[in-house]
Amino acid sequence: MNLLQDIPDARGGEITEALVARADLRIERIVSLGQANPPGFWYDQAETEWVLLLAGAARLRFADEPKARSLGPGDWVEIAPHRRHRVDWTDPAKPTVWLAVFYR
Amino acid sequence: MNLLQDIPDARGGEITEALVARADLRIERIVSLGQANPPGFWYDQAETEWVLLLAGAARLRFADEPKARSLGPGDWVEIAPHRRHRVDWTDPAKPTVWLAVFYR
Repeated sequence: MNLLQDIPDARGGEITEALVARADLRIERIVSLGQANPPGFWYDQAETEWVLLLAGAARLRFADEPKARSLGPGDWVEIAPHRRHRVDWTDPAKPTVWLAVFYR
Repeated sequence: MNLLQDIPDARGGEITEALVARADLRIERIVSLGQANPPGFWYDQAETEWVLLLAGAARLRFADEPKARSLGPGDWVEIAPHRRHRVDWTDPAKPTVWLAVFYR
């Protein structure tokens, strides 16, 4: 199985596939194509999220940082529970592929 | 932080860096440069391992499969506890970068 092949068409919306689904651990591939969170929206999650950008480009914003972070292939970040964050931008020209690991 | 930049020189041996280290979850970057397990060696782990090849090339062999699997960027596999496996080959010409997630 390959995360960079058979990339689904995300023009209609972000596509999430579960690779591992356990009560206390989830590993997902997420494919974006130009999607961003609406203005004023923040994720506020009970779980820790470890997220890696595998392909494409994105801007990730934290409520406690003044500027968005630009992410490219290989960039990763661990997001503590309830640390508010949002996706400001993903590349509309090509798919952005994320690997996300959620745990408690 | 970027998994594909500042790749350490693994000529002297495989290099493992812990990205997340919890009692029940570890996320590691492993860099190989031509290393393979010695003949007859098999990993036999108590934990589940979810492993993704990010860059380079490798051959991964399972004791219960007749042939090695060739892995390239984006290929991943979940290895059940105590499923015996070994690395038959990694590319000696360029670094192979693995992301490994271990859990119980």
